[in-house]
Amino acid sequence: MAASHEDPHEFGHACVIFQSAIELAGRRWNGAIIFAADHGVRRYSEFLAAVPGISERMLAQRLRELEEAAVLVREVVPTTPVQITYTLSERGRELARAVEPLIAWGERWLGKEKHD
Amino acid sequence: MAASHEDPHEFGHACVIFQSAIELAGRRWNGAIIFAADHGVRRYSEFLAAVPGISERMLAQRLRELEEAAVLVREVVPTTPVQITYTLSERGRELARAVEPLIAWGERWLGKEKHD
Repeated sequence: MAASHEDPHEFGHACVIFQSAIELAGRRWNGAIIFAADHGVRRYSEFLAAVPGISERMLAQRLRELEEAAVLVREVVPTTPVQITYTLSERGRELARAVEPLIAWGERWLGKEKHD
Repeated sequence: MAASHEDPHEFGHACVIFQSAIELAGRRWNGAIIFAADHGVRRYSEFLAAVPGISERMLAQRLRELEEAAVLVREVVPTTPVQITYTLSERGRELARAVEPLIAWGERWLGKEKHD
């Protein structure tokens, strides 16, 4: 979207990238999972407790999708029993930072509507 | 999302706001329309030319939705013939700024995938 709208080809490409980014961040639960991971949540059971309303099946699916998108890094810790942890990759940490202004915008412009 | 995940009620409310914000910004075409408006596009025919691939009907629908969301201001200019212009509200201008980091994230992390 940083391309000039006077160049339809470049603008179209920028739109595709923007749409991919915002769909990834905006897919239901992803924001909450990324936020939780950004605040130190690492294990499946912790995500389940931290993300209000998510089902076990949906959490497993989203964790897998976010791992495939290289936003989360899945790591098998060789303890007994084995532990699996999910942490934000560099890409994921930057995504967490990149959505913060949109969260602030929502709190400023949409937050009041819910309370008034 | 700025709320602590340790308070499920607050976190849930923040999630609702985030989801509303990102769905508004991420609904297909909205990003491109907001970007075009932010770059001086004001009239229906100009949006149609500026947003690649959008249909006339979809553009009319999105302009109405963005007006209802108070992102765009619709103004009837009393010329002959009458002109209708759409400009970003303060809320809209701030939304345009708020999605910029997400666009930059996409260009950095998703842009290369399309070219490599």
